[in-house]
Amino acid sequence: MKKWAVALALICVAAIGLNSQTTPQAPAPQFTPDGKLVLPKDYREWIFLSAGIGMTYGAPAEDGRQDFDDAFVHPAAYRAFLQTGHWPDHTIFVLERRRASSQGTVNKGSVGRYQSDLIGIGAEVKDRSRAPEGEWAYFTFGTNSDTAPVLPKTAACYGCHSQNAAVENTFVQFYPTLLPVARAKGTLNASFKE
Amino acid sequence: MKKWAVALALICVAAIGLNSQTTPQAPAPQFTPDGKLVLPKDYREWIFLSAGIGMTYGAPAEDGRQDFDDAFVHPAAYRAFLQTGHWPDHTIFVLERRRASSQGTVNKGSVGRYQSDLIGIGAEVKDRSRAPEGEWAYFTFGTNSDTAPVLPKTAACYGCHSQNAAVENTFVQFYPTLLPVARAKGTLNASFKE
Repeated sequence: MKKWAVALALICVAAIGLNSQTTPQAPAPQFTPDGKLVLPKDYREWIFLSAGIGMTYGAPAEDGRQDFDDAFVHPAAYRAFLQTGHWPDHTIFVLERRRASSQGTVNKGSVGRYQSDLIGIGAEVKDRSRAPEGEWAYFTFGTNSDTAPVLPKTAACYGCHSQNAAVENTFVQFYPTLLPVARAKGTLNASFKE
Repeated sequence: MKKWAVALALICVAAIGLNSQTTPQAPAPQFTPDGKLVLPKDYREWIFLSAGIGMTYGAPAEDGRQDFDDAFVHPAAYRAFLQTGHWPDHTIFVLERRRASSQGTVNKGSVGRYQSDLIGIGAEVKDRSRAPEGEWAYFTFGTNSDTAPVLPKTAACYGCHSQNAAVENTFVQFYPTLLPVARAKGTLNASFKE
């Protein structure tokens, strides 16, 4: 009986050890039954990759307005990228667009701007169960919607990402902590010119 | 003996349960023996609060250059803030300053800018073992240094934060997901005018 208790104790210790060492796996993107992507509720707690301002990806806005954007990626996908320079299956990027404000209480330099209201959310997803060749899919959420249909292949994002992105279809050239990883791992797209 | 085994099993189950439910505690800031703050190595994996550009906190730079800044806070402190609207003991903020670049491969609107080289790191720390009244302390790291002495009380940051910050000494007015929390919890500083 003593042996049995010792064995049980060892199993417990092993179980506690396994539990505390768990590396999070990238969870599969969630879709509604009619195929809409569900916005991950906790994306603001994911890994922040970078922010930009006025990144119009085309002609500047006529009224000169510049919005901020913030890019987030799931922590498990981020850790896989640090190890390999590639994005694993189930990678989800969330891009948030926020209004730029300048009427702060401290920011006395009138040129300074900080982020305020949320004005749009986009997502880029790699899911081999839906795109076996590893193609990325794009989604645009309204600010009051937590589901979004996949954008048609004619949407500008598909062509622009595939032609201009530094790693696969992702703009790693704008993520200052990941660009050196891609260089070191040799995973920059051949067509990408630094 | 059987009872003993059952008790051990129950203890194990409880231990596994506790382990998996653990809410991360904010780890104490690390200091060198001579009192310098050690830059947390993983701060880029903490919670991103917001980014700004050209936030000079004073007169604009004479050459018109605008840098980005990114604010990060430890996840445990962030979760405590969501629950209470207050920052717990051991809260650490890291503020990163990065060069703004505009020579991207995609960003054809010449007004758009994205983040590139790291040009400075600051930290703001609440540690009652060093400041029993809950005063915050400020630190400035060089880009090649992972330790920093506490800034003297005459440094501008102390006065500016205590006079202008929205919650305690922190600029929650610039963190769009936390300002509504502070409003809801009633923890905005009395002197802060929205």
